[in-house]
Amino acid sequence: MALVVQKYGGTSVGTTDKIRNVAKRVARTYDEGNDVVVIVSAMAGETNKLVALSQEMCEFPSEREYDVLVSTGEQVTIALLSMCLQSMGYKAKSYLGHQIPVKTDNASARARIKEIGDENIREDLKNGSIVVVAGFQGIDDEGNITTLGRGGSDTSAVAVAAGLKADVCEIYTDVDGVYTTDPRIVSNASKIEKISYEEMLEMASLGAKVLQIRSVEFAKKYNVVIHVRSSFNDNPGTLVMKEDAEMETVLVSGVTCNKDEAKISVLRIPDHPGIAADIFSPLTEANITVDMIIQNVSHEGFTDLTFTVPKGDLKKALKLVEETAGNIGASGVTSDDKVAKVSIIGVGMRSHCGVASKMFAALSAEGVNIQMISTSEIKVSCVIEDKYTELAVRVLHDVFELGSQGE
Amino acid sequence: MALVVQKYGGTSVGTTDKIRNVAKRVARTYDEGNDVVVIVSAMAGETNKLVALSQEMCEFPSEREYDVLVSTGEQVTIALLSMCLQSMGYKAKSYLGHQIPVKTDNASARARIKEIGDENIREDLKNGSIVVVAGFQGIDDEGNITTLGRGGSDTSAVAVAAGLKADVCEIYTDVDGVYTTDPRIVSNASKIEKISYEEMLEMASLGAKVLQIRSVEFAKKYNVVIHVRSSFNDNPGTLVMKEDAEMETVLVSGVTCNKDEAKISVLRIPDHPGIAADIFSPLTEANITVDMIIQNVSHEGFTDLTFTVPKGDLKKALKLVEETAGNIGASGVTSDDKVAKVSIIGVGMRSHCGVASKMFAALSAEGVNIQMISTSEIKVSCVIEDKYTELAVRVLHDVFELGSQGE
Repeated sequence: MALVVQKYGGTSVGTTDKIRNVAKRVARTYDEGNDVVVIVSAMAGETNKLVALSQEMCEFPSEREYDVLVSTGEQVTIALLSMCLQSMGYKAKSYLGHQIPVKTDNASARARIKEIGDENIREDLKNGSIVVVAGFQGIDDEGNITTLGRGGSDTSAVAVAAGLKADVCEIYTDVDGVYTTDPRIVSNASKIEKISYEEMLEMASLGAKVLQIRSVEFAKKYNVVIHVRSSFNDNPGTLVMKEDAEMETVLVSGVTCNKDEAKISVLRIPDHPGIAADIFSPLTEANITVDMIIQNVSHEGFTDLTFTVPKGDLKKALKLVEETAGNIGASGVTSDDKVAKVSIIGVGMRSHCGVASKMFAALSAEGVNIQMISTSEIKVSCVIEDKYTELAVRVLHDVFELGSQGE
Repeated sequence: MALVVQKYGGTSVGTTDKIRNVAKRVARTYDEGNDVVVIVSAMAGETNKLVALSQEMCEFPSEREYDVLVSTGEQVTIALLSMCLQSMGYKAKSYLGHQIPVKTDNASARARIKEIGDENIREDLKNGSIVVVAGFQGIDDEGNITTLGRGGSDTSAVAVAAGLKADVCEIYTDVDGVYTTDPRIVSNASKIEKISYEEMLEMASLGAKVLQIRSVEFAKKYNVVIHVRSSFNDNPGTLVMKEDAEMETVLVSGVTCNKDEAKISVLRIPDHPGIAADIFSPLTEANITVDMIIQNVSHEGFTDLTFTVPKGDLKKALKLVEETAGNIGASGVTSDDKVAKVSIIGVGMRSHCGVASKMFAALSAEGVNIQMISTSEIKVSCVIEDKYTELAVRVLHDVFELGSQGE
């Protein structure tokens, strides 16, 4: 007998019929002799409806009241799912964030979980009840309702699994698991059987949208095994877990791409200490996230600095950088929003040389020019012209032999 | 400076535009130098939508989960109203039942308030905040969400007013106040300026649907002055308050009617102790409310017993009564669902004779036969044939001079 935490997203509980299907799956897991805790999101579309209502009310709703409003979405789902399980003859009980309690900091609309109570839930499980928990929501020290940001139900599920020391945290979604790359780009992309937390974090932050990043960080911290799988079939999905020896034998686990960044270059900057701070401080103050940063060795006392920002922030960033460039005596600023970032990720590259060279050679052989490079222990990213994105992903997927067999 | 509690029902907060109007009225009360606590219902139609969703899910939803579901309606409204007040430049903070807390018993879907916390709200009022409270909901000792039954927001408002010792509890609705009778029946029905709790209780339970009965009981117990008024104009409404000398000078305050009852007679019962218990116990067990009961003096050892039940329960009641009638040796059972109850109410009749006779004479003069009579200290009710209902109400309204002047 295991303790299983299951999380179902908005599309899996989008209608009363779909909730009925979820109830059947939950019941089956219970009938197999497991203790079951279910975390659910709001019915698909509900959160958007509530957000629209708040915007109809006023332009800049306070975050505290926004949380009071949007947290009703999950509240509706837990009640309906519990009712359904009860009508099928099971004991079931719903829990709101404050009833568990899920204690968070007081950062409304993007709160972080600090602590999870397990006493109430354990008591119910002991009594043979299926426990149904509202995802996405918590409560701060003053008793205010908080929410965890979009995708926060993933984090709720992992946190509850950690708090209860569950055997597995199953995250049900509309895809079969985590793939070696986007199957819309590479038709023979294959499902990854298991992947380390570190790789999953790189995958998530580099553009794969299966899990909320914070949920993976949480799982890593508390060593929770996540099983990402489809709510529409019984196929095994992808296990996200602690790195093991087997994983290291794989050079590259996945290829990702991201077209949401733009490139800015500041040219011929007089090279002296503090110029980087001069350029980036105004961006930080304006809440613009800088991703890759490249500064070459200085040449006759001058250097060039290149970095990427989210495409949506390019205009605002350019204005700030042009101001700074004038002040620090740079010769000019150029920008380019026709770029993309392709990356290869794998814990195996830590113990194997030549992975980066193999990537560069493969891109070069297809005539793809590399504009920027950045590396970490387990990934290599290259910025290229955006029209080559799909080509680059396919080439890298091939050269590192990630395709599924028999296709 | 006064402490004012205001309650707005579903039609007053039915759209974001209407919520904006409520916010303006709340703000005006605040600007006049008052501390303001606002209790709101769910947006009109929302509770019905949620109930429909639960029925789509299963036939007999558990009451605990039903409360989790329907309480989201008020949660949406408090968030929107608070946002609106904030966007107008006011400090505002929303409160859910469990945040106040509104402690209730554990009777899901029809909970009774046991205790109201006032510390948190007082703190906010001291800081210059307008406090916005979700009506209809509370929390039991185990932390389960409870609801107070349909119309429960009235009771929430009175309970909060009692807990805070507010100067007045204003209940905003879509009518101007409490009328001497139903204006749809009598065109010159007049608004009552003030009415005692006792009279209001009789009015409410006899068919006037302005306030939830329980809210009036609560107000009476804690001596809360209720001001029933319209949210669409600034007219003074009706004060519901402790009886004063002035009220006693009025013989009759109002006339009500109720067409929702049916009459059952058990004929020629051998008269010995215990027959009433034999007849009514099965009805109590079946949860059927018996209203008027008439038993005449016995005649040659036999008596007749007549009583009324809600029309919807007539069939079920008849079946039970016919069984009993056979057992106790009565000669037969008759029933009539073409009846109505008209009543006159007034604390003045305690100290004046002849009020009942005047009523009987007035009905008789119009050829209306009286089938049953029941009286209390402050009311007289007559059961008549239902086709005479409107005529009877008009006649009584006239004879006790309740019509407004100049009409």
